[in-house]
Amino acid sequence: MESINIIERGTFNEKAMKKLLVHDSPYFRIINFNFEPGQELPIHSHDLEGELSIQIIEGEGEYLAQDRNIPAKAGDILVCAVSEPHGVRARTRMRVLVTIAPPL
Amino acid sequence: MESINIIERGTFNEKAMKKLLVHDSPYFRIINFNFEPGQELPIHSHDLEGELSIQIIEGEGEYLAQDRNIPAKAGDILVCAVSEPHGVRARTRMRVLVTIAPPL
Repeated sequence: MESINIIERGTFNEKAMKKLLVHDSPYFRIINFNFEPGQELPIHSHDLEGELSIQIIEGEGEYLAQDRNIPAKAGDILVCAVSEPHGVRARTRMRVLVTIAPPL
Repeated sequence: MESINIIERGTFNEKAMKKLLVHDSPYFRIINFNFEPGQELPIHSHDLEGELSIQIIEGEGEYLAQDRNIPAKAGDILVCAVSEPHGVRARTRMRVLVTIAPPL
């Protein structure tokens, strides 16, 4: 057993959101996304079984959904089907943790 | 799609750790545990398939493992098999998020 610290390990990049694979197994995949203001994980979906959680660790922005945006701030967790359109856009610097089960 | 804010919703209790079920589905279960200093999720395991992540949202303490303790602080994520002995003890107030896939 070993822990990883996503605040120490997760970096930012002016050019594009930064992605850190935290864990990957047959059970779930955990990914840390870090965004500079204005950067986004564009809205997308996968025609597959499963769900994902999108947790805001730091900062503020919005969740992107099919027909609307949902305010997002530290402490927020949103769960949706992998097949539902979803995304994230940063207003401030944001640290986000995504957990997908089962992994795609 | 709807989000829940675990910092706004998660409370503390002097008498025992506080548990908030964030999400439960065939894919994963997400639980927020809040601890006052000294409180703990005692070390335990389940003889079942699957993995869980234990993420520290706020505060400091330690992860409890079979033969040792591992320092735990905000940003840390530890993943282990559901069948491995695991637990958490708080030194300061701690907010912790546990994700189990598949749910027990």
